[in-house]
Amino acid sequence: MSRDVRICFVGDSLVAGLGDRQCLGWPGRLAARAIGAGRPVTYYNLGVRAQTSADIAARWESECEQRLPEGIDARVVFSFGINDTLLDEGKVRVPTERSLADLTAILRRAKARRWETMVVAPPPVIDDEQNGRIEKLDAHFTEICEAEDIPYVRIHQPLRHSEIWMREMSAGDGYHPGAAGYEEFAALIVPLWLLWLSEPGSGLPVVG
Amino acid sequence: MSRDVRICFVGDSLVAGLGDRQCLGWPGRLAARAIGAGRPVTYYNLGVRAQTSADIAARWESECEQRLPEGIDARVVFSFGINDTLLDEGKVRVPTERSLADLTAILRRAKARRWETMVVAPPPVIDDEQNGRIEKLDAHFTEICEAEDIPYVRIHQPLRHSEIWMREMSAGDGYHPGAAGYEEFAALIVPLWLLWLSEPGSGLPVVG
Repeated sequence: MSRDVRICFVGDSLVAGLGDRQCLGWPGRLAARAIGAGRPVTYYNLGVRAQTSADIAARWESECEQRLPEGIDARVVFSFGINDTLLDEGKVRVPTERSLADLTAILRRAKARRWETMVVAPPPVIDDEQNGRIEKLDAHFTEICEAEDIPYVRIHQPLRHSEIWMREMSAGDGYHPGAAGYEEFAALIVPLWLLWLSEPGSGLPVVG
Repeated sequence: MSRDVRICFVGDSLVAGLGDRQCLGWPGRLAARAIGAGRPVTYYNLGVRAQTSADIAARWESECEQRLPEGIDARVVFSFGINDTLLDEGKVRVPTERSLADLTAILRRAKARRWETMVVAPPPVIDDEQNGRIEKLDAHFTEICEAEDIPYVRIHQPLRHSEIWMREMSAGDGYHPGAAGYEEFAALIVPLWLLWLSEPGSGLPVVG
């Protein structure tokens, strides 16, 4: 008898898989990989274009609540930050302290709900100056997740050195890859992903 | 310059694509088909397991609002009803009048928001008695959509005569097909789907 694992992927347009002609993005690829590996999961994609940590903080819980009833192995994967670091009239859309406060608040609420959580780093974009800001956010996110005891998947640096990823950044709109880029993104997460799924979630009733 | 078309698929586990090892369901297949046909769309899947028309009526608007900002070609595809007709201690989970009131209210709100809307019929399941109740709901849904001037895609009857669909109902849990069944489902909708997408949505600003 397999566990009833349901997973919400919460984040921005990269989570939604914008630009992927196959309409899977990296979350759809991870879900399909889990099923292929004999670990059935219910897959919910809650990525929304243009959203910052503040936008996500305001909606994630009510949307996850609809999808994660009591008595299942309920999980949430978060990935955001790129839109926080976008410049708007010379200022970032969300100041760093606010991004960090949003992430901390989100992780604590998820823990209170007993939803098993994982965070995936914001990937690199075409613009090097913005990548500098994303890397700083990534370093802070790493610390927060360590302090909160939540797995954080550091995909920013490997993708910056990925020929496929950076080529797709140049070929596309500078922010979203195509199918091959999302495949590369997912492949970096797969080992940790399957390991994470193999452990029962904390919200499960203890059965003898 | 192509229109910025963003589409939310709202409904139950059939919309979510439960049972599809490819994690696309029929909505993901429709979105991929549109992109393949040179009509880029942003694809949001808001199907949730076990939800009735009442559950959906309570959450669909706030979730779509997050994803459909002003100034785009905003669309919503609805599909629900199977869970309304499930028996719980001898009574259906949602009485017919309530299902119909929910659909009517949803369509009118969508029109008020200027979101272009389409409704897809609830498909057949393994149980013939329940299929009888779904068919009655389907007939009412047809009338409502006609009265509200909303396209309604009658996939219930052709799927009931589809060897692939009914075989996958028997092979699976009786409610969810595998990839081949979802492909069959999507194929029935494709012609109307591409036609529907070729027409600009009503919420678009008129540009000279």
